[in-house]
Amino acid sequence: MADLGSVDALIDALRRLPGVGAKSASRMAFHLLQHDRPGAQLLSQALHRASTSVRHCARCHTFTEAEICPVCSDPERDATRLCVVETPADQAALERTGAYRGLYFVLMGRLSPLDGIGPKDIGLQQLFDRAADGITEEVILATNFTAEGEATAHVVSEGLKTRGLRTTRLSRGVPVGSELEYVDLGTIAHALADRR
Amino acid sequence: MADLGSVDALIDALRRLPGVGAKSASRMAFHLLQHDRPGAQLLSQALHRASTSVRHCARCHTFTEAEICPVCSDPERDATRLCVVETPADQAALERTGAYRGLYFVLMGRLSPLDGIGPKDIGLQQLFDRAADGITEEVILATNFTAEGEATAHVVSEGLKTRGLRTTRLSRGVPVGSELEYVDLGTIAHALADRR
Repeated sequence: MADLGSVDALIDALRRLPGVGAKSASRMAFHLLQHDRPGAQLLSQALHRASTSVRHCARCHTFTEAEICPVCSDPERDATRLCVVETPADQAALERTGAYRGLYFVLMGRLSPLDGIGPKDIGLQQLFDRAADGITEEVILATNFTAEGEATAHVVSEGLKTRGLRTTRLSRGVPVGSELEYVDLGTIAHALADRR
Repeated sequence: MADLGSVDALIDALRRLPGVGAKSASRMAFHLLQHDRPGAQLLSQALHRASTSVRHCARCHTFTEAEICPVCSDPERDATRLCVVETPADQAALERTGAYRGLYFVLMGRLSPLDGIGPKDIGLQQLFDRAADGITEEVILATNFTAEGEATAHVVSEGLKTRGLRTTRLSRGVPVGSELEYVDLGTIAHALADRR
């Protein structure tokens, strides 16, 4: 195909997206160039704008364009509760429930020694300082229920315990709408142990 | 999550990529912003450059930045053979085999009445004019072996036949390296019928 300079460059660049291999990248490039050039321009601008203007909230570390994110600067939120989540997407899921009016601390990752992600990379010291500000009464651990999420929750919980702070964890149990027959055994065991 | 202005805009823009839904788009945006901002900038520039500079070769319709693509303007290529493919990716696959030294005509699609893609959209008239230039001796139909690709090959073949031109089709048969036991029956039947 010889010199497809900027088409090949586009395919290479698309491969930097997670989960996109050579075939998908080539299909995406073809789609954008043949059927959706306005989409390509839009994406180009969105990438440029986000990667230059988005930074981390100085208080909760979530993505924001301001010094302090709108959630942290909202006086209506209950400052006595602090919910620890792994990513902004997890935070968004909690916000969509409408069931939580406290503040957040977003780790922007999880402890994962195999990937070289330690306490510093997820800002544990800042979390501990924040939780010990005298206002926070309860830290809710809402990391994922995966091996790494559980390990992270454990480390955070231990760190806060030595500082005399109370932590709670999202409850494990049977998902709403599911039938027991099809729920995995570990979940049923937890739901039984945590019965109320 | 309130005002995540440019993060949300990025997620929306990523969803315009084919095969990318809300969850993947959110994962991609998080990855780029948290772990690969240079990648985001690179992709932004590649998208901008490609969507402004890439056009279609005046002779074969493939993507190129020049008036005539490098393959069409290469005097070493055998101008008596013209290979009809659906996309630049198909063309690239043929080029990688190193087994073809003729020229191409890239349809940039396939006939698909249900999607409103007719003969004009894939430049059939230009193909017929090009094939009737007096130089072309053989038109090789290398559209995909799907229902739409086969239909497209049929229409091209009929159109060229009325102009007295010879067409050939890529052979169907058992893929190299495969065991008969695991090859689908239609393929085996074709391989048997086309035995040589």
